Amino acid sequence: MSSAQQRLAQVGSHLTAQKQSLAPQRPYKITVIGSGNWGTTIAKVLAENAGLRPHLFQHQVDMWVFEEKINGVNLTEIINTQHENVKYLPGIKLPKNLHAEPSIVKAAEGADLLVFNIPHQFLPGICKQLSKATLKPHVRAISCLKGLEVTPNGCKLLSTYITEHLGVHCGALSGANLAPEVAKEKWSETTVAYRLPNDFQGHGKDIDRYVLRAAFHRPYFHVRVIEDVAGVSLAGALKNVVALGVGFVHGLNWGDNAASAIQRFGLNETIKFAEVFFPGETNQDTFTKESAGVADLITTCSGGRNVRVAKAMAITGKSAVDVERELLNGQSAQGIITSKEVHELLAAKNLTKEFPLFEAIYQIVYGTESIERLPELIEEDE
Amino acid sequence: MSSAQQRLAQVGSHLTAQKQSLAPQRPYKITVIGSGNWGTTIAKVLAENAGLRPHLFQHQVDMWVFEEKINGVNLTEIINTQHENVKYLPGIKLPKNLHAEPSIVKAAEGADLLVFNIPHQFLPGICKQLSKATLKPHVRAISCLKGLEVTPNGCKLLSTYITEHLGVHCGALSGANLAPEVAKEKWSETTVAYRLPNDFQGHGKDIDRYVLRAAFHRPYFHVRVIEDVAGVSLAGALKNVVALGVGFVHGLNWGDNAASAIQRFGLNETIKFAEVFFPGETNQDTFTKESAGVADLITTCSGGRNVRVAKAMAITGKSAVDVERELLNGQSAQGIITSKEVHELLAAKNLTKEFPLFEAIYQIVYGTESIERLPELIEEDE
Repeated sequence: MSSAQQRLAQVGSHLTAQKQSLAPQRPYKITVIGSGNWGTTIAKVLAENAGLRPHLFQHQVDMWVFEEKINGVNLTEIINTQHENVKYLPGIKLPKNLHAEPSIVKAAEGADLLVFNIPHQFLPGICKQLSKATLKPHVRAISCLKGLEVTPNGCKLLSTYITEHLGVHCGALSGANLAPEVAKEKWSETTVAYRLPNDFQGHGKDIDRYVLRAAFHRPYFHVRVIEDVAGVSLAGALKNVVALGVGFVHGLNWGDNAASAIQRFGLNETIKFAEVFFPGETNQDTFTKESAGVADLITTCSGGRNVRVAKAMAITGKSAVDVERELLNGQSAQGIITSKEVHELLAAKNLTKEFPLFEAIYQIVYGTESIERLPELIEEDE
Repeated sequence: MSSAQQRLAQVGSHLTAQKQSLAPQRPYKITVIGSGNWGTTIAKVLAENAGLRPHLFQHQVDMWVFEEKINGVNLTEIINTQHENVKYLPGIKLPKNLHAEPSIVKAAEGADLLVFNIPHQFLPGICKQLSKATLKPHVRAISCLKGLEVTPNGCKLLSTYITEHLGVHCGALSGANLAPEVAKEKWSETTVAYRLPNDFQGHGKDIDRYVLRAAFHRPYFHVRVIEDVAGVSLAGALKNVVALGVGFVHGLNWGDNAASAIQRFGLNETIKFAEVFFPGETNQDTFTKESAGVADLITTCSGGRNVRVAKAMAITGKSAVDVERELLNGQSAQGIITSKEVHELLAAKNLTKEFPLFEAIYQIVYGTESIERLPELIEEDE
């Protein structure tokens, strides 16, 4: 055997060993909680991978669907027969092994991996319903919910909320992932953040980074798995505040230099926020090197609700409330809410001066400062 | 005196001390070499600050202008009488203390700070002309030229080129600075990179970070001064390669997720490139936290020549040469050239596999790979 062949043989046996360690004693059962456009999109991704990896995952992926009637027919029935979520993801063919289930308890029981993908505000109700289910002892979870809870006392991760209310260890998935693009299999990247739990059952017996990558990674949806759950969650929340700043400068027609300056400034304040409120727990690289960080920030600042609302405020001089009523049918741009929560936290901790961009955006949103003064408000002394 | 008054007094005397240390024995003379749209814009910024800081800077700022006739009148005469560069920055009023000078030798002699702002390819000729001037012994320079020289042997900073050819210590200025926006005083940020020279004459006697900030910082042009000249220069060159990748995915209509994924990937490879080719000399923060880094990357990827050329290549299937001929009148998008230079360097060092995005972009530009395979080409193994 030549030395090159020896190397090849070693590589080969290494790969086999890795593959064996991936295959569990029984394939993992995946359930998605939620079926909006992002929920259905993630369920599609997971069902595709489950279909391709029978040793690793049970063939059928369940998706809990809040039952409703579409022209007199149950939405779950439509999904299970037509393989399309005609209400929340119309026009996208779903894998046949994705099964819509109207009972949240039934969907969750038997799952080894619960993937939460519902609007933030529904989480308490969902957890209450799930607390009645008999979950598997070592079921794990991934939260695809964006953001975190910010109160004047501090920040709580939504993954922590899930763990506290259900006793289920939970990571997070976030990235530059506009759902319609992922659903159409346009290439993107995402970040899965997961830390092994204290009661980890061992590789091949429990969800780990390899299982998570196998579950979520697709040729059109590239996954990197990291450990920084707090960083991923913070980036997902604070980007919406930064996007308001970008909308403001676009509204004043200040151009691309100003828009990217806001993003740079916002990225720095996000990193600082993480260091202050999750000391030792987050990693700067999450913000600067991962899809959930800088890439999601750029995508969010390229358009979307927060940019649109802020831009309209700048152009018309109207309040956030008025613009939201006109543009979003009274729904809220998440950044408007987060900006206030962040301000209240920073004010409670006497830290507003340390975060001049976040504070300026808050003051502008709530009418106490003018957008024109933004550069002055964030000007750094030498 | 109350304790608050004492503190105030201390702050006051501290400020006075700082101000005194800024004021040199004789005010510094600033000369700008170059008068294109970016050159004239930077000269405007400098002249505004010189006019406001008579103790720090000589009132008149000279700008070397390559003399040409506009309707029979010398361009320098038009600038000096009408205070407008009608050829390269029409519609922008220039400060009266900005003086256009047709002799490059005369403009440079007597200067304490030379600010280079000319197209990259003119630098050798300019240095040759300047080598005939009798420069002040401790004149310093800032290069606003974008990029650096990449050859199969390695990278050379343009600031280093200036130092080698003129014996003048040189820093760099770069940032998210589309010239027309800065000229119109739309708010933006920039980065000045400057390391004190070995023969530094002392604060108050030589150009330092305070002098540079005072020279360049305006209410609409925020300056941060750092020391990482190599990082600023690298970011300014490699962003153009990344912008080609963004143009490709826009051409295929892959959306905002894909565009920001390319930027994330490009940012990471830029940092890695810096670590490989300028070990110990650059700082990751330059790329992730400064205007010359992430902000300039975002601005460049928001539009501009490189994005346009690559997008047209993707849509039409035409070669870079053909698209450049049609869109840019035969001029080149800088990224096309840099991409080839980077490839040749990486190939010479056997490092192409370490930079899959840069390499994929090169292969696509030069026709050996298809854009559709880009995700596959840069897919990371777990």
